[in-house]
Amino acid sequence: MDEFSFIDSIKQHSYKQSSLLKGIGDDAAVFRQPAQDIVTAVDTFVEDVHFSRKTMEPYHVGYRGLAANISDLAAMGASPTFYLVSIVIPKTWSMKDVDQIFHGMREIAAVYQMDLIGGDTVFGKELAVSITVIGYTERNKARYRSSARNGDIVFVTGTLGDSQAGMHILLNENKYENKDYYIKKHQKPLPRVDFAKALADLPRVALNDVSDGIANEASEIAVASGVSIHLYDEQLPISQSYQQFPLDLQRKWKLFGGEDFELLGTVAKESWLDVKEAAEKSQTPITKIGYVHYSVDEVGYVFLHDNKDRQLLQKDGYIHKK
Amino acid sequence: MDEFSFIDSIKQHSYKQSSLLKGIGDDAAVFRQPAQDIVTAVDTFVEDVHFSRKTMEPYHVGYRGLAANISDLAAMGASPTFYLVSIVIPKTWSMKDVDQIFHGMREIAAVYQMDLIGGDTVFGKELAVSITVIGYTERNKARYRSSARNGDIVFVTGTLGDSQAGMHILLNENKYENKDYYIKKHQKPLPRVDFAKALADLPRVALNDVSDGIANEASEIAVASGVSIHLYDEQLPISQSYQQFPLDLQRKWKLFGGEDFELLGTVAKESWLDVKEAAEKSQTPITKIGYVHYSVDEVGYVFLHDNKDRQLLQKDGYIHKK
Repeated sequence: MDEFSFIDSIKQHSYKQSSLLKGIGDDAAVFRQPAQDIVTAVDTFVEDVHFSRKTMEPYHVGYRGLAANISDLAAMGASPTFYLVSIVIPKTWSMKDVDQIFHGMREIAAVYQMDLIGGDTVFGKELAVSITVIGYTERNKARYRSSARNGDIVFVTGTLGDSQAGMHILLNENKYENKDYYIKKHQKPLPRVDFAKALADLPRVALNDVSDGIANEASEIAVASGVSIHLYDEQLPISQSYQQFPLDLQRKWKLFGGEDFELLGTVAKESWLDVKEAAEKSQTPITKIGYVHYSVDEVGYVFLHDNKDRQLLQKDGYIHKK
Repeated sequence: MDEFSFIDSIKQHSYKQSSLLKGIGDDAAVFRQPAQDIVTAVDTFVEDVHFSRKTMEPYHVGYRGLAANISDLAAMGASPTFYLVSIVIPKTWSMKDVDQIFHGMREIAAVYQMDLIGGDTVFGKELAVSITVIGYTERNKARYRSSARNGDIVFVTGTLGDSQAGMHILLNENKYENKDYYIKKHQKPLPRVDFAKALADLPRVALNDVSDGIANEASEIAVASGVSIHLYDEQLPISQSYQQFPLDLQRKWKLFGGEDFELLGTVAKESWLDVKEAAEKSQTPITKIGYVHYSVDEVGYVFLHDNKDRQLLQKDGYIHKK
């Protein structure tokens, strides 16, 4: 397959989004969105930095790459709509494998009726996939990190640490319970778009997606909102068979592991029932894991409480007694 | 400079676009554009594939990379508004040099009041810069390749072949006339945004930017519009001192060289006066170089006419007698 027929092969033959005026095939794509706000982000994945062929088939590289970007849109409360893909292809990758990357992207794109509207295919020394996503939110309903307020409830969707557990299983031959479950969580994570959209009627919610571990995500909310975030260790949601892994890894993955693409959020106590309803409506497991506090000398801090103690959580996994 | 302080250093402290609701600093950026159509494209530049440090300072890599993307927006008739940058940084590049790339981008962005609203910084084996641009056009005024019609006049802005001439000068020590002029055309091309915007009142114009040489760009218009395009060799605009270069290079650069980022267009004869007015208003040199023809057995072809003969131009530079 040469470059031109390859580009033809990844081009969509029809588009699903009615706001799209021009897809691939000109100098740029064109769309129109008068009624909503437009949300956009870009992320790049490099082989052996962000993923390894030891734990990912080409199909998963595409699926997970776009999933991570969609997760950013979910964390803004936006509906995924379009994506553009720039890919650097090294000689070590066959066009057939590259095609599988696009196959993986198409599969998760189809879940949300997203259209591929642009891109670039170039050759280089290492595989790098750069994905730009575009989504829509109701006007003034983009969800910011800076919206957390004193007294808010802190919640998280799903379970934590599963993606890292899946990678661990793939890299360490051994007997594990629910092997396929963890591997799937690593290779084919499902962003929490439906839940985020079900929150649309809430007047205020702070949201962040768990791409780098909740310690880091909570810290970003705390810093942006000028508050501190307090988490209860024993309330952090884990999968049933998660305790089969060594204790230190359990702790490391759930706090700092990341790539679970769950949503971490904070809302006013009065909104908590609405959040639970949104979770039910979108069939999303949700857990209350802490609270937001304002104290002038603790702005930007994240604390982890256990039975009697509290510790200051650092983004990088380094923990201080406090 | 570590990664975090670097990202801080490239982040804009204030934004110019009033349609922007949220810039860098959350999971994604947010903007609102009810009155206009939105245009978006992405391009990636890899070191030693798309540029070389032999002919480009890091500053030029950024300037020219964003210029090429802006040129795509100009070719759609759009006003450049936002950009997002994903960059893969190898160990061979210092953060100081990477910062210079962003400096170059900022400088051309400032010409159009563009805001940097997102990006990603990752480390890898080779420098790759992936730029996504977003622009606005009046409703239904995006300019497509498919708009050329039988009898249209074909025109091009500026002069052709200068960028390749500039690269040639940089790679071959010798005495040349107007050296700085050609080098600037290679390192700091200026996209034809003002001219494209000045065409806004025209009911119809087909536009393509000259990124890959006019033979290729004319072919794209011919294929998309289902017509043939006829160019007059002696009318192709060249710079005054262009004839100092060997004849075969002159021909190669002006037809197949590309990266001049001029605009190639076609309009109805009745619109030609308006196009000339738009050129004058935006101080853009413009030249009539041919015409569009429809003939059922010549769809998608580009012909080059000289004194007595005509030749079929192939995109790749291979020329057939016809």
